[in-house]
Amino acid sequence: MLILYGFGGVGRTLVEVVRSRTDLKISAVFDSRGGVLKCGGFEKPEIEALLRSPRGGVSRSGVGSPAALEEAFRCAEVLVDVSPPNYADGEPAVAVYRSALKAGLSIVTANKAPLALRFQEFEGKPVYYKATVMAGTPVVDLALGLRGQRPLGIRGILNGTTNYILSRVDLDGLSFADALEEAKAKGYVEPDPAIDLEGLDAAAKLVILANALGVGLSLGQVRREPLRYLGPRTKYVAEADLERGTARVSPIQLGPDDPLLSARYSTNAVEITTEVNEVRVYGKGAGRLETSLALLNDVLRAARERRCR
Amino acid sequence: MLILYGFGGVGRTLVEVVRSRTDLKISAVFDSRGGVLKCGGFEKPEIEALLRSPRGGVSRSGVGSPAALEEAFRCAEVLVDVSPPNYADGEPAVAVYRSALKAGLSIVTANKAPLALRFQEFEGKPVYYKATVMAGTPVVDLALGLRGQRPLGIRGILNGTTNYILSRVDLDGLSFADALEEAKAKGYVEPDPAIDLEGLDAAAKLVILANALGVGLSLGQVRREPLRYLGPRTKYVAEADLERGTARVSPIQLGPDDPLLSARYSTNAVEITTEVNEVRVYGKGAGRLETSLALLNDVLRAARERRCR
Repeated sequence: MLILYGFGGVGRTLVEVVRSRTDLKISAVFDSRGGVLKCGGFEKPEIEALLRSPRGGVSRSGVGSPAALEEAFRCAEVLVDVSPPNYADGEPAVAVYRSALKAGLSIVTANKAPLALRFQEFEGKPVYYKATVMAGTPVVDLALGLRGQRPLGIRGILNGTTNYILSRVDLDGLSFADALEEAKAKGYVEPDPAIDLEGLDAAAKLVILANALGVGLSLGQVRREPLRYLGPRTKYVAEADLERGTARVSPIQLGPDDPLLSARYSTNAVEITTEVNEVRVYGKGAGRLETSLALLNDVLRAARERRCR
Repeated sequence: MLILYGFGGVGRTLVEVVRSRTDLKISAVFDSRGGVLKCGGFEKPEIEALLRSPRGGVSRSGVGSPAALEEAFRCAEVLVDVSPPNYADGEPAVAVYRSALKAGLSIVTANKAPLALRFQEFEGKPVYYKATVMAGTPVVDLALGLRGQRPLGIRGILNGTTNYILSRVDLDGLSFADALEEAKAKGYVEPDPAIDLEGLDAAAKLVILANALGVGLSLGQVRREPLRYLGPRTKYVAEADLERGTARVSPIQLGPDDPLLSARYSTNAVEITTEVNEVRVYGKGAGRLETSLALLNDVLRAARERRCR
């Protein structure tokens, strides 16, 4: 039984994926203005009604009973956080995780802020976060599988929006201003554009990846320079020296043979260097369906790991 | 407490890694001629003595007490299989897994044969196998993280030895015969050369990856053509159409822009296509230390997942 915490684009896509591909039930849905609960799980027509409700309108949908989040905890095993990131302090999500974990729930999240700000608090607890980095490409699972190899560094193109903008300039000849406008018009840019254009999103992903590899990098340690076009082969690179604990997100003009160049448009890439290996991963870094399928994978894993052997 | 089943190159490296990097204890070591047991775990000087014993000489090392494998089950939680693959029927490892699982142990393996031949029997049981595919590069974990996305295909360079040979011909101008001799002289080729040169190793990895993605491909379904050099950009490609259930390992002359070309020498690469994504992973595919660190990661995971929450 799932609680959905957040009911925007990804939340709604996740509900459709859960309904069409699984037997999982959803017992509560919350948006920024409140939520509704049905302990036995919503039936199909109720799900339809929720999907028809406007943004912020869940509590007035007439489905289930209006409820406080804590009431919903007794009717679910997994809380899925698809609320927007708050990089100031991670709230209200951080407080929600604390009380949900205390009530015995597992957390599955696509929201980067709580982990980027407080990874160590949630480490070792049943918090699943593969959807926070490269969405459809489970590089978090790969990073967790590398644990044991001493990690040396990370270098990546971790934000699809800025990579799209730079690719349009570099490969298609648009001006930077036009490419930025186009990305905004297509809805690729976050409501708060600084999250993409000043590197906060990429920095958060870098921090989460570093911590998945076992290195306690914090968001404050990541130096950020805003997106600019410096000339041919400019990429907005997130990189961390995991031995020194230094990290930055900045525009860099890459050399012509740099393997990161093959990440074009909204493709993401990451290079993880360890004492014995250099792993490179390319794949999609965003998308509602991609993110929803990553969340679903983690929901199933959370459910499996709740069972005792 | 660990049982080591196999004590060749990887087994010995794993023992050194366990000793130097962890507090884990080893209670039994078995090689092809027998094994020794000490329920409380071997102490450092005993480990040293085991490491000094010749191949096949564990039972005459004077360390611990000679024992049958089943006796060791009561003194361990995890059995690590680093025995050589037997692609005829997977034995004796398959029988060992069955009795160890029945006795409540978890299995961690670098031996591809049991899973390539009987994946479905061991699916859902505590059997951990990231070391079977691309060793130091945990592409198995990435594949498990993709579950939920409908998988369409796999294409990869999954055998380091044959890729080394082809790279020496293609990039360095050696004759195929000379490159093959060099690979043999360097010890890169399996004792049974057909495992590398007739594609059995690559086919086994392809089957394990397909099954990790949730598709029940079997080793018998993989058509294999022996390694040959066909001209520039020849790669020994393992590929599966996961919708049709067809698969093959064969030499192919790739197009000049094929991303698999950037996997050179002993670097491996794999491309996984799903309904929503195309993921590419590059990294080291072999090496004793790399394989040992992958095994260690799985041992720690197995131990963690044995605990009830």
